[in-house]
This record gives sequence, structure tokens and C-alpha cells, in this order.
Amino acid sequence: MATVAHADGCTSRRSFLGKTAAGLAAFSALASSGCSEPMTRSSGATGRGLIRTGDVVLFQGDSITDAGRDRKRQDNANEGRALGNGYALFAASQLLATRAEAGLRIFNRGISGNKVFQLADRWDADCLALKPAVVSILIGVNDIWHTLNGNYQGTVEIYEKDYRALLERTQRELPGVRLVLCEPFVLRCGAVTDKWFPEFDGYRAAARRVATEFRAAFVPFQTMFDQAVTTAPPTYWAGDGVHPTMAGAALMAKTWLDTVLHARA
Amino acid sequence: MATVAHADGCTSRRSFLGKTAAGLAAFSALASSGCSEPMTRSSGATGRGLIRTGDVVLFQGDSITDAGRDRKRQDNANEGRALGNGYALFAASQLLATRAEAGLRIFNRGISGNKVFQLADRWDADCLALKPAVVSILIGVNDIWHTLNGNYQGTVEIYEKDYRALLERTQRELPGVRLVLCEPFVLRCGAVTDKWFPEFDGYRAAARRVATEFRAAFVPFQTMFDQAVTTAPPTYWAGDGVHPTMAGAALMAKTWLDTVLHARA
Repeated sequence: MATVAHADGCTSRRSFLGKTAAGLAAFSALASSGCSEPMTRSSGATGRGLIRTGDVVLFQGDSITDAGRDRKRQDNANEGRALGNGYALFAASQLLATRAEAGLRIFNRGISGNKVFQLADRWDADCLALKPAVVSILIGVNDIWHTLNGNYQGTVEIYEKDYRALLERTQRELPGVRLVLCEPFVLRCGAVTDKWFPEFDGYRAAARRVATEFRAAFVPFQTMFDQAVTTAPPTYWAGDGVHPTMAGAALMAKTWLDTVLHARA
Repeated sequence: MATVAHADGCTSRRSFLGKTAAGLAAFSALASSGCSEPMTRSSGATGRGLIRTGDVVLFQGDSITDAGRDRKRQDNANEGRALGNGYALFAASQLLATRAEAGLRIFNRGISGNKVFQLADRWDADCLALKPAVVSILIGVNDIWHTLNGNYQGTVEIYEKDYRALLERTQRELPGVRLVLCEPFVLRCGAVTDKWFPEFDGYRAAARRVATEFRAAFVPFQTMFDQAVTTAPPTYWAGDGVHPTMAGAALMAKTWLDTVLHARA
């Protein structure tokens, strides 16, 4: 649970990426990293990445991860229809193309509407039983959204407490598991109104705190989309402000891969 | 129709890519290019790429391009279900993510089973009417396959003649169109037996000749897969030897993008 600061390496990494004209995703990841995560992004030159030969890789989360996947096929590793049509599909397909020799087995078990406690309810079957080496989680938007629309009574504190308990259980049951925590994000359009703020920022901050505590790689999706809206309107990336378009999902996959393939394990 | 050789630039481009440890796709593209296409790959440092602001981009071909697309939605640009689940989806989604400011409109009109003459039969509606700025074509495997199984009487000469006529018509009707011709490919597994060879190599060579004649960018899929089978078995990339798996399609998208984004227009 201890955190390890990388203050010394911070300046040099910023400098390196600036000089090499790294793309949007790398820049966004860096800008958001704060250089404080123990398992953080680093330059491609030094990061070993989280993916190892023979790994089972699991994507978990809500509708953004689910993305229309065929749940009847969810036990079939590496199958397109089982992976949905969102960032998990795009990230998995690129991993399988570029790390073919690794013999990876990739699953998606995101379920639409889930909040953290609902991940916990199904964690034995939908995470631990798969014995994943890498677990990637994107969760949080429903914890606030369902509270705003009166269907749930959540707070940032409940979210953070539930998230911490889930990860403690995961590390206890899967010693050595490599965790990837994705920043919850919204675009300022569609269902996302001013009443989401500033509370939503608290959920994002909580996810980052938990990532630091659990030495997880942190994927800065909000920072990424904040940069993306300077190139195209929010609806280009997520029509309702919550669910990514194809372009939004592809950009997420790019940032996810950039983070995971360059993280320090 | 004249070809322009780039012999002078060939050595230096090889040297550049070697030094920068470019990935599999870039290496494959280079290894296959022969440095003879007028609109060819070059290093990222000098290639402008074929994609321009406001472009309509069209993917055309057979089942490998079709890839389960929802044809009822084919008039919806940039829509996942309209793009299928193959290399066109993966390439389009990455283009839309990384070139958001360009306002691209991307369509897929591949149809399963098509040979060159069948593209010609529907070219008015499924190509010219869209007024594409960029037309990418992958065609040829059925021209030989359907001949081998007795459902068509094709030859390399017919394929090349039909292909040339199709491209002459395209350039006449769409002045300034930027063409991307994809190399037909097979993996040595599934339906692909020894009886495909050496005739299949003739189809590949014909596609390359036509690309050179028409100053098209050429995407070297066979070279790419020849390299890929050194990292995973043929069935990993295409179960039946013809239709790519998700991993195969993702690798194709990588090579397509590497070619198209670095081509000299």
C-alpha cells in the first residue's frame, strides 16, 4: 500500500517525451501522470510494459467496456464478438497483432450499468476464476450518474472505499496480479450537464488515489479527452457524453496501449 | 501511366528504418516495396500521406473487406456496424481517432465473394457515386479460388485486364483520386493447398504491376503475413488461410495505415 514517488525521474521523462514529439496519447498520459504512480508510464526506451508471455488479460467495467459484447461467447479468448466493439476490442486486437508470439488470452467481462459494488458481487466468477495476470478496470461513471438520476445513493467516499476493498481482495486472491486502473471520464455534452461538477472530479481523483495506493498503471482517459476536444467537438468522441463513439473508443485503445506497454511492472 | 523509379532514395530509406527500429509492418512494407512505386511508402519524416482534410475514404473489395458489415447502414459514414469487423474497421477507427480534425467520411462497400469484374458491375453505385478522394481496393483471392473450385474460369491475364479497366474508369470519372491497392494474400493453411501455387503468386505480381502503372500506394499484405508467420502459426492470422482472424485484421490495419499515412501523394 505504500506509495513510491518518482520525483527525480519526472523532469527527465517530460523532457524526453517533449523532444521526441510523442503523440497525443503519450503526451496526455504524461501530463496527467503527476509522476507519482509506482507503476507508471515511462518513456518507451525504459518501460518494460505489463504484458508477459502467456498472460491472461481481463477487461472489466461497465457499458463502456461491455460495448455490445456477445456474453454467450465470453469464455472464448481473443474472439472479436466476445470483446464487444469498444476500446477493449481495439486494444485487444492490436495486442494480439503485435504480440503474437506471447500467446495471450484476452477476455472482456464488462457489464453495462455496473458500479463498483456490482463488480464486487460478480468478482469470483468474472475475475478471480479466470486467474488473470493483468486486470484492467474502468468503473465510476455510473456511481455518480445513477446517483444524479435518483437510482442509487452513492458518494465519492463509498466509491473509493468499495474500490479499495475490491482491489485488496484481488491482490490477496491473485498474488502478483498486474493492475490497470482507467480514469473515469465524461465529455461535456449529451447527458453530462453542469450538475455533474465538481463532484465528478472527485471520482476521478479517487480513482487516481487508489491506483497509486495499489501500484496500478493509471490510464488518464479524462486528460486524453480534454485534449481531444481541441481537435473535434465532444459529440465526435461520445454522443451522449458518456459512451464513446468508434473514434473515441479507438483513441482510448491507443492511450490504454501506450500506458500498458510502457508501464513499469 | 509512366512509372518513376526511386532507386536513389531506396538505400537511404532502408537505412533510416533500420536505425529507428521500426515495427514489423513498416519493415514489411519496405521489404516489399522494391522502391519502384511512384506513390510509395517513405520514411515518416518525409511522406505526406494520402489523407487530406474533408476526404471521403472508400474501402472496396471482397469478404475480407466486407467482414460482416451491416449493409443496410452502408450510407452512414464512420459508423462501426457499417464498417464491419475487419481491417477496414480497425483502420478507419484509428484514422478517425488520430485525424479527428480532418472531418473524414469513411465508407466500406466490400462484398463477400467478389472478383474484379463484380466490382466493375457495381462501381457506379458503390464507388463513383460516393465521389471518394481515396479508394482502397483489396481484390483477387476469389479470382483464383473460384477458378480452383470450378465456379469461375479466371486467369491472371483476365484479372489484370479487368483490374486495369476498372482503374482507368475510376481515374477518368474521379480526376485526382488517390488509389490504394492492397496485395492479395493467403496463409498456408485451411483451404489454401499446394494447388494454389505458383499461380497465386502471379495474381500478386499482377496487382503490384497495376499499382505501379496507376501510381497507387501498394499495401504489401503478403509480405506482412509471410513475416507474421514467423511469430505465430498461419491459423493464428487466418483460420481458413483466406479470411483473417481479429489479430490478422488488426495487423492488416497497421500495415494499411503505415502505408497510406506515409505514402507520397
